Amino acid sequence: MTDKRISFLGPAGTYSEQAAQIWCEECDLVSVDSIPDVAKAVNDGLTDIGIVPIENSIEGGVTFTLDLLIHDSDLSICGEIVIPINHNLMSKTEIDFSEIQTVYSHPQSLGQCRQFLTTNLPNANLVASLSNSAAVEEMMKSPMNSAAISSDQAAKIYGAKILKKNVEDRPNNETRFIVLGKNDHPKTGNDKTSLCFEFQGDQPGILSESLTEFASRDINLVKIESRPNKKSLGRYVFLVDIEGHRTDEKVANSIESLSSKVAMIKVLGSYPKFI
Amino acid sequence: MTDKRISFLGPAGTYSEQAAQIWCEECDLVSVDSIPDVAKAVNDGLTDIGIVPIENSIEGGVTFTLDLLIHDSDLSICGEIVIPINHNLMSKTEIDFSEIQTVYSHPQSLGQCRQFLTTNLPNANLVASLSNSAAVEEMMKSPMNSAAISSDQAAKIYGAKILKKNVEDRPNNETRFIVLGKNDHPKTGNDKTSLCFEFQGDQPGILSESLTEFASRDINLVKIESRPNKKSLGRYVFLVDIEGHRTDEKVANSIESLSSKVAMIKVLGSYPKFI
Repeated sequence: MTDKRISFLGPAGTYSEQAAQIWCEECDLVSVDSIPDVAKAVNDGLTDIGIVPIENSIEGGVTFTLDLLIHDSDLSICGEIVIPINHNLMSKTEIDFSEIQTVYSHPQSLGQCRQFLTTNLPNANLVASLSNSAAVEEMMKSPMNSAAISSDQAAKIYGAKILKKNVEDRPNNETRFIVLGKNDHPKTGNDKTSLCFEFQGDQPGILSESLTEFASRDINLVKIESRPNKKSLGRYVFLVDIEGHRTDEKVANSIESLSSKVAMIKVLGSYPKFI
Repeated sequence: MTDKRISFLGPAGTYSEQAAQIWCEECDLVSVDSIPDVAKAVNDGLTDIGIVPIENSIEGGVTFTLDLLIHDSDLSICGEIVIPINHNLMSKTEIDFSEIQTVYSHPQSLGQCRQFLTTNLPNANLVASLSNSAAVEEMMKSPMNSAAISSDQAAKIYGAKILKKNVEDRPNNETRFIVLGKNDHPKTGNDKTSLCFEFQGDQPGILSESLTEFASRDINLVKIESRPNKKSLGRYVFLVDIEGHRTDEKVANSIESLSSKVAMIKVLGSYPKFI
């Protein structure tokens, strides 16, 4: 590993920090304030690479990241990593569930623990925080009967007491992160390619016709996602992940052929598949 | 209009309340606490219909609603309505932008006004609220140098002073709402049909093959969205909107044919297109 600095969405204690540490054990970690700032750090040369969440197995696509890739970044995806997400209920000291009056967490995490909260803390007031780490920080400044839902790591950093581990409603809670750099990854033989495209106006059948460019070449479509084009309701940009490297002949041909059908196409990068 | 009671995501002053009022001027409005509670009110017979946001032109799909339709509801979509979203910066009294130290709003609205905030209030502390109405309520209880971003209606309800109208970064900010009932809508000749489906395991090409069921019958695919199936990362449920009513012969044939290819399919309803 020759990369030395990696930017991630902070503060310390977020799941993004965990992902950055696992991706690159020897890197210097650089905490920034937002997903766009991760990309900016790479663009400006402050870091060599950056890591951002793109998809959670329960909540779905991370729209900030998808929109960054579509609209606001010329960086390439050069890697991906999947990490398990385990939420923990924590407070300042050991207290009984019945004493808890307020629970701080990021809205997405509150969503992932909804059944647990309804069953165990039906009367607690749920308070949205800007990150899971900020939730613990706010909780530590609040009265004794407050709790937070956050990561192991955030509990350690702020000295919170974990009351119950793994309070997420569904097992298999995992988040996929992508690594952004100035270049994508050379071919390894077990690769994925991400791209996005948009059609001009209303063309019945154009999406299925376009996907046939992959299917007819036996290229597996791993994922398709639509995002608003932000100009008008009902107009979308499609993001797809396909198997193979953009330098593979059949992948290159499919992209060339697709290019003639679309109003915009952007190859976001080829990179080794996780696992 | 024979429906008498309509449930919506409260509290009073939200954009959902505006949509409910416009949809059904003579209905009694019933405010509930969450998107699932809107559906529950209809299911339990507390209201005749319910209205929920499904898609914003900037932020994209409302995942709570999509997941409700896929996993947790047997209600049908019987209508849709699109309303413009205009955000306003407000405070307790007329104050200068330079005095504002804190801005309360729902994270989605903060996201939609990011450029305005960065340019005009670069040093303000942004605080996430659980709804745009809750943001105004919190702001009204806070010191003088606080502001909120919310709707006209919320400003009226809480007696806030609007400092600047339309602070959203992009014009054409619109939200589409769907109306849920025990039955969908009879055919009008200008209809849409929503459905969702999931495939069994990895089948290269199966998605484009499935969409061909619509394309080959000249059925326009209006929208496609993917959501995690929540069992395992990388497995999706697809939601599509197509033109036509489920009782139209070609639509019925396409659905029947698609049914033989999928592990799960759910027709969410047919309803008149908005406009």
